[in-house]
Amino acid sequence: MKEYTVAVVGATGAVGRMMINVLEERNFPVKELRLFASPKSKGIKIPFRGEEINVEVLEETKSFKGIDIALFSAGAQRSLEYAPKFANDGAVVIDNSSAWRMDPEVPLVVPEVNPHAISKYKTEGIIANPNCSTIQMVVALKPIHEVAKIKRIVVSTYQSVSGAGQKAIDELISQIKAWCSGEPLPPAKHLPQTIAFNCIPHIDVFLPNRYTKEEMKMVEETKKIMEDPSIRVTATTVRVPVFYGHAESVNVETEKKLSVEEVIEILRKAPG
Amino acid sequence: MKEYTVAVVGATGAVGRMMINVLEERNFPVKELRLFASPKSKGIKIPFRGEEINVEVLEETKSFKGIDIALFSAGAQRSLEYAPKFANDGAVVIDNSSAWRMDPEVPLVVPEVNPHAISKYKTEGIIANPNCSTIQMVVALKPIHEVAKIKRIVVSTYQSVSGAGQKAIDELISQIKAWCSGEPLPPAKHLPQTIAFNCIPHIDVFLPNRYTKEEMKMVEETKKIMEDPSIRVTATTVRVPVFYGHAESVNVETEKKLSVEEVIEILRKAPG
Repeated sequence: MKEYTVAVVGATGAVGRMMINVLEERNFPVKELRLFASPKSKGIKIPFRGEEINVEVLEETKSFKGIDIALFSAGAQRSLEYAPKFANDGAVVIDNSSAWRMDPEVPLVVPEVNPHAISKYKTEGIIANPNCSTIQMVVALKPIHEVAKIKRIVVSTYQSVSGAGQKAIDELISQIKAWCSGEPLPPAKHLPQTIAFNCIPHIDVFLPNRYTKEEMKMVEETKKIMEDPSIRVTATTVRVPVFYGHAESVNVETEKKLSVEEVIEILRKAPG
Repeated sequence: MKEYTVAVVGATGAVGRMMINVLEERNFPVKELRLFASPKSKGIKIPFRGEEINVEVLEETKSFKGIDIALFSAGAQRSLEYAPKFANDGAVVIDNSSAWRMDPEVPLVVPEVNPHAISKYKTEGIIANPNCSTIQMVVALKPIHEVAKIKRIVVSTYQSVSGAGQKAIDELISQIKAWCSGEPLPPAKHLPQTIAFNCIPHIDVFLPNRYTKEEMKMVEETKKIMEDPSIRVTATTVRVPVFYGHAESVNVETEKKLSVEEVIEILRKAPG
């Protein structure tokens, strides 16, 4: 079986660490694992298959040759700057950030939904991974769209703090612990408001059209992944005081009428 | 100024206690306050305007004559049994429970929306207060409906534990405290699942149509309060780990097209 040299960029972040765990859990055919992070992570070692892997500093690395697959979760800025460097050195980059998603030359892919999109595009070497809230929605909606053609989607989300990274997870923890101790809650720093015992309808920044960027990501990415710009989407994205996992309430209008039982059957058979 | 003999039924519950606070805060013209609860609350005294008011046992009271207004929040069963008794003895009952809401002879009233409904009905002496999640939604939607006629509503809620009473509030508290102490969480008893760091799309019981009773309350009560059975409503009601306050994401389709600015202006001027 073919083995790959895999890089994880943003290896010390919440997502990076989970990627490393999953590579091990799922026995991905890794010949060599290389880990990259920012200068402040210099010297950190992360275990993989019983070995301690040294974290390399991204900014200090001159060449990325020899890397087959690079999994990026280091923020949009770093993806913008480094994904092309990895790709030019021969890697296929799978990017978790928003940097390349709406680029017309870059495929935006959810494996259960539009894997064929990879070959549709002029080879850039970059494949974009959609926004967390978009992914789970299109996995559920694609099989319905195939049978009954979706016209309109109204979605409201219930997004956990991990979506905003380790610092947001730590912020919820420290607020809850302060509450338990009867101390004043530390002020909100990594989320727009206090999140303990609260819900915040504000994820990412507000745009002139009064939606947030998170909401518009759901709108734009859905149309691209489903390959149908006629699907109308409106989203309200809300942060809830949960650690891991996102939930969504999705209302769907279809061209063709479907019974509840038909929808249940479609979803029961669908991947993911 | 006219003064009233006011009764609070369910005086020791979360809502009852808040009603007593609000009567005092807002200087309601109370001549005499009488408090009723179940036998297990016998002997309890609750402060009101510097006095300690003795809680009377509902089941042990023979007559309710002399009571002008009775505010009920003691569950549907008690409302079904006792609201007519108070009404027959001359009180106007304002009932918080679901018992009388969809009764064709009973007005279902939100003061900002349909106060005129009180005189529409043959005098039963009972006025029903809608479900918590319905009330705030119709207060926001009525002014839009008046200008542009609402055709369809898609609502997803974010409901606090207080909606399920003091026991649910205590359950969230005990789960969070156990978490802070590193102890196993006490099992869910008053909510369908563990609520700490979780969201539960299950409020009240599931019905054969796969909606919950809470969701169907929003559907049916909205049509009655807005006096328009043609308004189509679909709801997803979700419990979130928040103590007090409900939030809702409401998507509205209107007959007449309105700009965002027009809607903002309508809401800015609307009561509540």
